[in-house]
Amino acid sequence: MRYTVFSGGKRIRPILCLAACQSAGGKDSDAIDVACAIELIHNYSLIHDDLPSIDDDDTRRGEPTLHKKFSESTAILAGDALLTLSFGILSKDSFSKRRFRVINELSHAISSFGMIGGQVVDIQSKNKDIDTATLNYINIHKTGMLIAASLKAGAISGGAKESDVKRIFKFGEYAGLIFQIVDDILDNDGYAKMLGRQGAYIEAQRLTQEARLILKSSGRGARVLNAILEFILKRGY
Amino acid sequence: MRYTVFSGGKRIRPILCLAACQSAGGKDSDAIDVACAIELIHNYSLIHDDLPSIDDDDTRRGEPTLHKKFSESTAILAGDALLTLSFGILSKDSFSKRRFRVINELSHAISSFGMIGGQVVDIQSKNKDIDTATLNYINIHKTGMLIAASLKAGAISGGAKESDVKRIFKFGEYAGLIFQIVDDILDNDGYAKMLGRQGAYIEAQRLTQEARLILKSSGRGARVLNAILEFILKRGY
Repeated sequence: MRYTVFSGGKRIRPILCLAACQSAGGKDSDAIDVACAIELIHNYSLIHDDLPSIDDDDTRRGEPTLHKKFSESTAILAGDALLTLSFGILSKDSFSKRRFRVINELSHAISSFGMIGGQVVDIQSKNKDIDTATLNYINIHKTGMLIAASLKAGAISGGAKESDVKRIFKFGEYAGLIFQIVDDILDNDGYAKMLGRQGAYIEAQRLTQEARLILKSSGRGARVLNAILEFILKRGY
Repeated sequence: MRYTVFSGGKRIRPILCLAACQSAGGKDSDAIDVACAIELIHNYSLIHDDLPSIDDDDTRRGEPTLHKKFSESTAILAGDALLTLSFGILSKDSFSKRRFRVINELSHAISSFGMIGGQVVDIQSKNKDIDTATLNYINIHKTGMLIAASLKAGAISGGAKESDVKRIFKFGEYAGLIFQIVDDILDNDGYAKMLGRQGAYIEAQRLTQEARLILKSSGRGARVLNAILEFILKRGY
């Protein structure tokens, strides 16, 4: 569990979560447990994605993947344990209606209706020509849902009013899609193959403009969110 | 997910959960979601246990295991999805302090400090001679913790007072151990190998007597719990 969690990573999801909390007027302490739980969930998903029967990846962040370093059974169980630990962290100490809702939102986002659903369709599509609708389904679910849920969970934790929770979730859906397009540009895959690298980058820029309009508010949280969006976009430059 | 969950199974854990809820004076509706979530957790653990890199089992309940019927990636993801769904069910609708605590107790019981920890030590002990302490560690964690947590979660959901929660958890620890000893008698494994089948059965009987004394109360819930204990013991006869 430590081997993967402390092997680096950009911590984009927890940062988005904390920024969303700030933008709602909350303190970091309102969302720090949520942010940590989300990063553990993300790391669990990486460990299981890398497994031989799924993506069969030998390296991650420049190091051997967990199943290469230890064993396949260790990787399966470490992933299970990280997923479980995330709910342990979400439910420790601070009991509140907000936190209860966060648990429900996150479990939905990573369920078979969310992240896992996207992963299943991705596996079923391997080595097949897929249409844009399927590619969108995969990306929205496999990558987008957890990113959008990170923002939503932060906003809820910070006490945002319902209309702001909705808006920040919408922003998160854009952020997730942009993240994936940029990933595809870097890997010359998915959208980059479908639209060409230049076309994909233009699409990412267009979506970034749209996402900025959704945020509207101009407080410190919104500035941080816009800066992260810029960072996500620039990775593909 | 459906293939495994609806393939039979004795539903011992949810029954224990509901009985514990009853024994605390609660209604079935106070614990039914918890009972369902626990059964999903149990099914997730079976799917992952059966995987080629863990127990490598081809059949379960007389049918092909999930990874044999579908694929290994399907089995990994279906297990992940069942674990996730269980927390979705635990956090839907009915928000309460009790439910929040149940989420924390269950996540602890199946974490690397509980069920997964037991599974890891079990894998590390494969094809090795192990001492009684290690065998106890494996059984208490791999099997016992979820059974004991099922009872505890039911008691909490039914509104039991703290001393009764503690007592029913203790009863659950005995129930888990008896369950495992009987399993070993049926498989001629573990305790049966260590104590002989007859010796193991005598030990299970002795523990059953002790467990009965812990319960003390004599309401309908306690009668159900004693009946289940009897059922668990008699499987090995």
